[in-house]
Amino acid sequence: MAYKLWYWPSIQGRGEFVRLALEAAEIAYEDCARTVGEEGLLADLNDRTGRTPFAPPYLELDGLVIAQVANILMYLGERHSIAPSTMADRLWLNQLQLTIADLVAEVHNVHHPVAMMDYYDDQKPEAARAAKQFREERLPKFLGHFEDAAQANPGDWLIDHRWSYADTSLFQIVEGLRYMFPRRMKTLEPEYPNLNRIHDQVAELPGIKAYLKSDRRIAFNTDGIFRHYPELDAA
Amino acid sequence: MAYKLWYWPSIQGRGEFVRLALEAAEIAYEDCARTVGEEGLLADLNDRTGRTPFAPPYLELDGLVIAQVANILMYLGERHSIAPSTMADRLWLNQLQLTIADLVAEVHNVHHPVAMMDYYDDQKPEAARAAKQFREERLPKFLGHFEDAAQANPGDWLIDHRWSYADTSLFQIVEGLRYMFPRRMKTLEPEYPNLNRIHDQVAELPGIKAYLKSDRRIAFNTDGIFRHYPELDAA
Repeated sequence: MAYKLWYWPSIQGRGEFVRLALEAAEIAYEDCARTVGEEGLLADLNDRTGRTPFAPPYLELDGLVIAQVANILMYLGERHSIAPSTMADRLWLNQLQLTIADLVAEVHNVHHPVAMMDYYDDQKPEAARAAKQFREERLPKFLGHFEDAAQANPGDWLIDHRWSYADTSLFQIVEGLRYMFPRRMKTLEPEYPNLNRIHDQVAELPGIKAYLKSDRRIAFNTDGIFRHYPELDAA
Repeated sequence: MAYKLWYWPSIQGRGEFVRLALEAAEIAYEDCARTVGEEGLLADLNDRTGRTPFAPPYLELDGLVIAQVANILMYLGERHSIAPSTMADRLWLNQLQLTIADLVAEVHNVHHPVAMMDYYDDQKPEAARAAKQFREERLPKFLGHFEDAAQANPGDWLIDHRWSYADTSLFQIVEGLRYMFPRRMKTLEPEYPNLNRIHDQVAELPGIKAYLKSDRRIAFNTDGIFRHYPELDAA
């Protein structure tokens, strides 16, 4: 039986970290809301009882429902050997994924600083202020951290000689930030050669190559987490 | 050898979730920065190379350094049996802890909506707006989710018949929110009897009872994550 992935059908968002790991490993899954739509997703979420997800994405197999991106990836890593198996390596990978999750939350906060449930248009002055500090202080701090992580295993993947889910997640971070902040990333990127190398290696994985060319990959847009608003970018 | 915990020495903050699990399990640890101060913590962090933490808290034992609260707790859970061992239970516990981490990030965003690295005083109007939506929409959504989780195992702990680290974390959420939003919590709390029950059960654990009476428990204050600013509270 194939996995059922439940996530918003019109954005990459947080679900994309799960999609990328599944696609890279060529694991069969059904992206359910691409068929039943947003209403179908909300109906599925609201009908659940017991151990329920707080929010999408969640992954379902044989009655087991797993939510939270890092948790889903850890499960896939254990089950499909797309993660190392020693304790120290597993913890390091989970730690990196959780730091990626922190970055993603801060990225979302840039365009929704004061009212997560309202529109960007209702908080543009606040977003401009949030974007400035994010671009100038937070972004280099996060990217420098991931560069150090990528440098720890020179010329190779994050850990050992094979990709893991944190490699595909770093790919997505680079893709998303290039879309959201093209001018800022042009300035910063030369400082992160190892992070870029991992990005390029992931793009060449057969499963990812096929995925990026398929219509399963939703284009970046201004409904997702990484949003390109030119007024929030600067070199 | 005792664990070394590295975290800011004058606040509960994110480190408190780790302190509570260690104290409840009566596991020996040294809260290093209580001795060497904030400068000592920063020096330790900056001197690290290789697999480094992005930020405190981090836990050290025999050269292994683990960062990110949910990651540290998962490690302690596996190592000291303060978490269930079946896969489904482990994933559910981690999922809850990650949702608690999401709540904590949103709580911090209430008083630092537009400039994480600046002072609250520099963003008071924005914080007032962020606080309103948090109190009215986000807080009931999170607490309702945790109430459902607490209700899933009626009259007992979150899972089975013994406490786990997500129980101690829920205790801290209730404590922190009561300090930060006393008026709002007075309105909401009657709706969450099972969450309050878990809070009270944790408070009665021998290790926690001793800890709360000791000077190891730092008082809530307006440098931490849960901050009481009366102007941000409302019934």
